[in-house]
Amino acid sequence: MPDTKILLEERDIPTHWYNVVADMPNKPAPPLGPDGQPVGPDKLLAIFPMSLLEQEMSGERWIPIPEPVREAYRMWRPSPLFRAHRLERMLGTPAKIYYKHEGVSPAGSHKPNTAIPQAYYNKEAGIKRIATETGAGQWGSSMALAGKMFGLDVRVYMVKVSYDQKPFRRSMMHTWGAEVYASPTDMTQAGRNVLAQDPNSPGSLGVAISEAVEEAASRPDTNYALGSVLNHVCLHQTIIGQEAKKQFEKVGDYPDMVFAACGGGSNFAGAAFPFFADKAAGEKRAQNIRLVAVEPTSCPTLTKGVFTYDYGDASGYTPLMLMYTLGHDFMPPGIHAGGLRYHGDSTLVSHLLHDGLIEAIAVPQLATFEAGVQFAQAEGIIAAPESCHAIRACIDEALRCKATGEPKTLFFNLSGHGHFDMASYDKYFAGELEDYVYPEEAIHAALEHLPKFG
Amino acid sequence: MPDTKILLEERDIPTHWYNVVADMPNKPAPPLGPDGQPVGPDKLLAIFPMSLLEQEMSGERWIPIPEPVREAYRMWRPSPLFRAHRLERMLGTPAKIYYKHEGVSPAGSHKPNTAIPQAYYNKEAGIKRIATETGAGQWGSSMALAGKMFGLDVRVYMVKVSYDQKPFRRSMMHTWGAEVYASPTDMTQAGRNVLAQDPNSPGSLGVAISEAVEEAASRPDTNYALGSVLNHVCLHQTIIGQEAKKQFEKVGDYPDMVFAACGGGSNFAGAAFPFFADKAAGEKRAQNIRLVAVEPTSCPTLTKGVFTYDYGDASGYTPLMLMYTLGHDFMPPGIHAGGLRYHGDSTLVSHLLHDGLIEAIAVPQLATFEAGVQFAQAEGIIAAPESCHAIRACIDEALRCKATGEPKTLFFNLSGHGHFDMASYDKYFAGELEDYVYPEEAIHAALEHLPKFG
Repeated sequence: MPDTKILLEERDIPTHWYNVVADMPNKPAPPLGPDGQPVGPDKLLAIFPMSLLEQEMSGERWIPIPEPVREAYRMWRPSPLFRAHRLERMLGTPAKIYYKHEGVSPAGSHKPNTAIPQAYYNKEAGIKRIATETGAGQWGSSMALAGKMFGLDVRVYMVKVSYDQKPFRRSMMHTWGAEVYASPTDMTQAGRNVLAQDPNSPGSLGVAISEAVEEAASRPDTNYALGSVLNHVCLHQTIIGQEAKKQFEKVGDYPDMVFAACGGGSNFAGAAFPFFADKAAGEKRAQNIRLVAVEPTSCPTLTKGVFTYDYGDASGYTPLMLMYTLGHDFMPPGIHAGGLRYHGDSTLVSHLLHDGLIEAIAVPQLATFEAGVQFAQAEGIIAAPESCHAIRACIDEALRCKATGEPKTLFFNLSGHGHFDMASYDKYFAGELEDYVYPEEAIHAALEHLPKFG
Repeated sequence: MPDTKILLEERDIPTHWYNVVADMPNKPAPPLGPDGQPVGPDKLLAIFPMSLLEQEMSGERWIPIPEPVREAYRMWRPSPLFRAHRLERMLGTPAKIYYKHEGVSPAGSHKPNTAIPQAYYNKEAGIKRIATETGAGQWGSSMALAGKMFGLDVRVYMVKVSYDQKPFRRSMMHTWGAEVYASPTDMTQAGRNVLAQDPNSPGSLGVAISEAVEEAASRPDTNYALGSVLNHVCLHQTIIGQEAKKQFEKVGDYPDMVFAACGGGSNFAGAAFPFFADKAAGEKRAQNIRLVAVEPTSCPTLTKGVFTYDYGDASGYTPLMLMYTLGHDFMPPGIHAGGLRYHGDSTLVSHLLHDGLIEAIAVPQLATFEAGVQFAQAEGIIAAPESCHAIRACIDEALRCKATGEPKTLFFNLSGHGHFDMASYDKYFAGELEDYVYPEEAIHAALEHLPKFG
């Protein structure tokens, strides 16, 4: 039997990130200020280092990965590419299924791929501290890890309801030496404003972002870091797909379809963009490749949203970005794939979808857990609920292959393990989870609040 | 910089387990029945398959690993050997530190190394079901995984207090399709007896073992499986040290000292015995190797116990084994390395210690968490509290090397990750953990209850 795990050596860690902007037929529109004018890097220097802003705006195809970042990646990279022999047998499919296991990182997901370089570039810029926010804790724990590796202090504003209900990611952050506060706090004006209205506020990601940005903007030694959506975040994640390509080369195969869960977009970008590069470069084998972003039916940004300028956050503090959005005050239900509860999407991913160069589908929650359990019983690995979206889409395609007899090569990104999500699996087993399909009227209502300008 | 991870290919998974019995100058004494007579395999056939009993009694040096077991091992094996560059720098030691990461298995520890072959041999013997017990859940989840891989139903009697307080390992077992019951149950006579005395009994490992053994003994389609202590369990774990030797060979190094946490003994056996094989074979580089079992000061079996025949369980149901023991009714305090709370130790490990061929040390609880946090901040990985015992011992030696300038090569086994132990880290951070050093009088009292016979 061919190998289960396709491994690379540390010297195979890519030397450059791939910037999809270079290959986009329509270049991404710039972020706009409230006045409708493009926001230049100068306005963002208060919270980001110039090196990251240059990456954010860059049109260069290949961006070198600094050696200290490659060295830190070696803690867990290259991540293994698995051939899902057992899952294929369980499904009885003629399709070949591969998955990249990003859950092998110390924080358990793909997030450190960008936390590490963000910490590095901030350290290089003389910054001493990072302020950031986290919901359930995936991003906060990744930033805590990265800060420790580069000697930066990290303060995490963790949404209060998660701080109280999901203590173990908080414990991880403490283990890596980060400060963690339940947001809203009384340490920022943004937090105090919320507490004045409701001293028992459970918090929200929007409020936590506001607190972190306020702190970063007001302290010269402190910057802000974001875990998805932005161009430079998508850029850093392309290490996933680049490694996967080398691994496919090693076994003489190449995917017909790529599946990745899509919340803010960087996980999908990381897995899919390097294959888009092959297509753009005219490689024959890549001409018919299908790149599929998988989102929840409860937060159907790419499949039901509109392509327009909107705020990145719920409160309207951020610049406006051209993207698929459900409206910045769209409030998705409390599904168990917290990383996919985002009203908008990466500008890069949105542009590619709008230009018909990638695809998007939405899958319901119960079916994703069903797929996750099937995957665990076949492959052993317990996946994060976000990753179960990609697994669901891939299994569905493998079953279509079974029906048609097509021996397609399918690839999905297993973005993280589910060790901190077992309570969600428990609810699934107890029959306590529901499928949410967002009513069209609710989406229409949220879209009426889109910003008007210009 | 040399590689951080020393990897092997799947074809490098060993083809044989190493049986240390072949190289022991004094062969292990047989288990005895209550009459003081050796217990033959016939008496154990009600709960174990003959193939495993043959391994339990074997004196052969090399025992072939069946191909289906090697194939299942490929889900995660060979596990990586890490060179702890970052930890070395943090400590400022001239020592080289390596660790084998057994936490990469789907269940998160070394336990599946034996759960997988135990499931295989039982399946081959026509058995349909496995009954077993678990405390905090490491073993139960490993057996659940292994049962699913070979199509066996698994029922786990989980100590009630853990069932209630540690729900997430229970969720893992459910995900892999196992039945999990809070022990004591009303499904066995052993359980009913306990419940009759105390309907609110929190349960104990001893009671859970009794329930699982009773079920296995009374149902022809059901066998029992044990996760440590026994010779065949130690045998299966030797895949760890064998892989490590190949990995050291790959980088042209060899350990001066091997450290592994020791509860029932199989983790230590797995890491250390293959190096003992080199010494026994007269290999020059192995003549001065030191093999160090690390136990908690709160349960100092090897360092404070006596070498004598005692029961394997608290209730006195099992055969008597010649081993280091604190007395079968010794009740260690509720430390956070649950896997190390065992009154006795593997017969093999005990014999080797008694013959002066290995060493044992005890380390206090707080110092192990301190080492675990230092390790996480250097290497990224959050270790299980059990593994932190080996880390502590290894760091102490590295610091001695710093003082003396000796560039020793140190190797420890990272037996598992700590993702399901974050509550223990929390207690450590909150200053709620204590050091327990068991009073000599308490040990003497327990030793007065040693069985008398013959």
